[in-house]
Amino acid sequence: MSSNKKQQTWKEKLHTIIYEADTPAGKLFDVVLLFFIIASIILVMLESVNSIDTKYHDLLNIGEWIVTILFTVEYILRLITVNKPLKYAFSFYGIIDLLSTIPKYLSLIFVGTHALVALRGLRLLRVFRILKLGRYLGASNTLVNAIKASRVKISVFLFAVVIISIILGTIMYMIEGEENGFTNIPKSVYWCIVTLTTVGYGDIAPQTPLGQFIASIVMVLGYGIIAVPTGIVTSELAKSSDKKIDTNTQACPNCTAESHKDNAEFCYDCGHNLH
Amino acid sequence: MSSNKKQQTWKEKLHTIIYEADTPAGKLFDVVLLFFIIASIILVMLESVNSIDTKYHDLLNIGEWIVTILFTVEYILRLITVNKPLKYAFSFYGIIDLLSTIPKYLSLIFVGTHALVALRGLRLLRVFRILKLGRYLGASNTLVNAIKASRVKISVFLFAVVIISIILGTIMYMIEGEENGFTNIPKSVYWCIVTLTTVGYGDIAPQTPLGQFIASIVMVLGYGIIAVPTGIVTSELAKSSDKKIDTNTQACPNCTAESHKDNAEFCYDCGHNLH
Amino acid sequence: MSSNKKQQTWKEKLHTIIYEADTPAGKLFDVVLLFFIIASIILVMLESVNSIDTKYHDLLNIGEWIVTILFTVEYILRLITVNKPLKYAFSFYGIIDLLSTIPKYLSLIFVGTHALVALRGLRLLRVFRILKLGRYLGASNTLVNAIKASRVKISVFLFAVVIISIILGTIMYMIEGEENGFTNIPKSVYWCIVTLTTVGYGDIAPQTPLGQFIASIVMVLGYGIIAVPTGIVTSELAKSSDKKIDTNTQACPNCTAESHKDNAEFCYDCGHNLH
Amino acid sequence: MSSNKKQQTWKEKLHTIIYEADTPAGKLFDVVLLFFIIASIILVMLESVNSIDTKYHDLLNIGEWIVTILFTVEYILRLITVNKPLKYAFSFYGIIDLLSTIPKYLSLIFVGTHALVALRGLRLLRVFRILKLGRYLGASNTLVNAIKASRVKISVFLFAVVIISIILGTIMYMIEGEENGFTNIPKSVYWCIVTLTTVGYGDIAPQTPLGQFIASIVMVLGYGIIAVPTGIVTSELAKSSDKKIDTNTQACPNCTAESHKDNAEFCYDCGHNLH
Repeated sequence: MSSNKKQQTWKEKLHTIIYEADTPAGKLFDVVLLFFIIASIILVMLESVNSIDTKYHDLLNIGEWIVTILFTVEYILRLITVNKPLKYAFSFYGIIDLLSTIPKYLSLIFVGTHALVALRGLRLLRVFRILKLGRYLGASNTLVNAIKASRVKISVFLFAVVIISIILGTIMYMIEGEENGFTNIPKSVYWCIVTLTTVGYGDIAPQTPLGQFIASIVMVLGYGIIAVPTGIVTSELAKSSDKKIDTNTQACPNCTAESHKDNAEFCYDCGHNLH
Repeated sequence: MSSNKKQQTWKEKLHTIIYEADTPAGKLFDVVLLFFIIASIILVMLESVNSIDTKYHDLLNIGEWIVTILFTVEYILRLITVNKPLKYAFSFYGIIDLLSTIPKYLSLIFVGTHALVALRGLRLLRVFRILKLGRYLGASNTLVNAIKASRVKISVFLFAVVIISIILGTIMYMIEGEENGFTNIPKSVYWCIVTLTTVGYGDIAPQTPLGQFIASIVMVLGYGIIAVPTGIVTSELAKSSDKKIDTNTQACPNCTAESHKDNAEFCYDCGHNLH
Repeated sequence: MSSNKKQQTWKEKLHTIIYEADTPAGKLFDVVLLFFIIASIILVMLESVNSIDTKYHDLLNIGEWIVTILFTVEYILRLITVNKPLKYAFSFYGIIDLLSTIPKYLSLIFVGTHALVALRGLRLLRVFRILKLGRYLGASNTLVNAIKASRVKISVFLFAVVIISIILGTIMYMIEGEENGFTNIPKSVYWCIVTLTTVGYGDIAPQTPLGQFIASIVMVLGYGIIAVPTGIVTSELAKSSDKKIDTNTQACPNCTAESHKDNAEFCYDCGHNLH
Repeated sequence: MSSNKKQQTWKEKLHTIIYEADTPAGKLFDVVLLFFIIASIILVMLESVNSIDTKYHDLLNIGEWIVTILFTVEYILRLITVNKPLKYAFSFYGIIDLLSTIPKYLSLIFVGTHALVALRGLRLLRVFRILKLGRYLGASNTLVNAIKASRVKISVFLFAVVIISIILGTIMYMIEGEENGFTNIPKSVYWCIVTLTTVGYGDIAPQTPLGQFIASIVMVLGYGIIAVPTGIVTSELAKSSDKKIDTNTQACPNCTAESHKDNAEFCYDCGHNLH
């Protein structure tokens, strides 16, 4: 650590503001950040609407650049104020932050790199830090745990759905044939998933009596098996006893590890002093 | 209270009739009121049907005015018989009652203020007072409590649905493009919500194989995550033990507070004598 | 009882065959009856298919008459073998049996009385007597009890759905207007129910951005509140302990009361000797 | 057993590889097999896509023959290495394996026997052997047990759905008639199932006000009764206590019985020595 005492204090202060939401400044930073994330998403959306884009193209473009530059500054500050920048750069949020920033720069060089902007939506996940309400974090943890606990059962269930869709889709392709919209097996399997999940677009629908009979069976089947994931998640949630969860938003200045205990003095991950 | 003994008695009697459903007169008042609320809704509905409106325009108009005048009289009586009229005027029911009454008057001056009539539907909520059956109130309380208790979990869930819709909607816009109906990102996000909730209108449907593949994933995802709110509400309902709930319909003549205990002598909110 | 010993025995024997499924003859009778009920339903269905009806009109007509005459004979026998014919005639099954029989006779006199044949479907409920498997009766009782126990909660829920549909339907009528298919308020309310229940035909679909935004809210709402009836029924089913249920199919020869205990000597309803 | 010591060892070794997944060789065999099953399904799918089939017809045909020959070899080896080949040949997997292999041979003689290839999807079920993860087997067992336990209740429920569909379908046929797409009763019943299960294609949709009113009832009904199978499965899953389940993949070399205890010396079904 080749930095003098004063500089470290300056970095430490910024670290508290950027990575934590316990102090008023940290909270304000997160609220402002969230505002710009939402603004950036709305900008991308408006840009995609032709009638709006032709009218306000320059305005939207300027807005995009403002957001992009702010995101860039934020990304650089995050890298500077953390002791292990690489660890942040390759963390989930670090990658999302980078990918949300670069598409505008890339659009100067390449055409069609706009696709990455979709990832800006993921930045919305930061909202959970701002809410900074134990119950929100607790609730999302309870949900995530219930889903995790039923992970295996849900995999088995989804696998069964895929097998059923392949078999019934192939059968429907045989029965209905190309003249009724079931032009090939992948499309028939797609139809089967559309029906089994009770979405039912209606762009492809069986026309022959036999096809409609089998479709009815698929529907009742889909109607019945929707009970399975529900049953799985419900019984898991009923088990979970909503234990107290630590909602401290401090992040270790050394390794960015979170969820420290409220009275923690050292990082549980790297042992660095938290204060 | 600058009213003599007799007037107060008259006001008190009316208060009992209008605000409470324990006496035969009070019950009759509520039933008649409900009849006129339903009549007013049917009138608005019929008026919107062109073929009926051209035939019976005058009849419907007269009906509307009768209902509006009756609602006006009722609103004024409610204001008069309550000790704190402002508290009623700015209560949930007070606002609904006012907004259900004024659109017809406004229609004399302005055009297009008809929109407010939709709020008359909310007046239907008064039905719960008339049913005056402990089990209905109890059941609705149990439901409301279960939903309240799972409020935070459901918010987290809905927030996750919004993020998923934004990301997948943007991706689908990239893949399908304008020629397949995904004309802009907001419309793609709309499509994603239509699919995720298994509604599936079919006005926008993916046409490319890759788009249909991703749509299949969205559907199975939507099919799976419907389990989450169900699981949340079910485990809450299973917890709730259907405790006895006070179903007294008396309202304080001073401040309109409700849910007094059956043997209450004074209002729990303002201390006013209830008898 | 003005009948000699022998006649009573003959009536008693027939009663056992027709009303009970414990003896081989009784079981055979019920199976044959079920066969004719299913045949009668298939006949009505085939008759409605134009291409089949034009080809086999006479054949179908003869089949219909055979079924109708057999049903008539069965109905008369049921009236004769019971001690209190009026009680049977006005019981649930008695009315269904009559209404399933008369439409063919009425079709000789009036045109368009065919509508009643739909009621033949209800005769299928007799299948539960034939299955004569305690577990089927037990299972259906458990289900019915769970639904009965949650009757009040489900009413409250359905009432909330109706109010939401009326309000949101009216709002959508204001926003979308006649040019986008929301021709009147009843139709808008219908659209709202189609969307809220996630059926989503797509014959009416919002076209304006604001309409699509509100539709998205309706969908997520519908997606969320589907959790409520599920939660209600699940928590009721979890409570029910699948108690042993009497599955005796004996019916009192005097008053047709059912569900007698296996070792019952006298009818629990009218005190008549069961043997 | 008219085979010398050496041959038996050779057969035994092959049996371990083909029928079991405990040894590295057995696991490798299963992974390779799964790869070819998935390849065979993809081949069938691609062949059905016209644009791909015209381009790569020969390539796909060769691939099909390679897969078919490999499946044939595997099927013969399975028959040889098992002591009771007939028992395997008539087991669930034995029939599936045969039916997945023969359609290509039959296509040389007959036209249109391709229908059987749909059954190849069932071979995917072998994936569960490869996963060879106790928790997957355990999870699928828990699910299957919960569904088995609620078998009777679900039958009753499905039967009720069928009766409701027949009655409401017939009523809608009367109301809407042929001019609105309800051309005959079977089609109306199909519509009713499409609506009741909330699939809602929209190819048939009620047009008359009365028809739309009844359709609304059908939808709310369908929305409500989806709660029933969910409640059934959930309460069963909540009961099941995720007991330890034996996940040994050994198969008896004599009779192919599976699920032996880890320390089993003899087959629990035929008493044959397992080692």
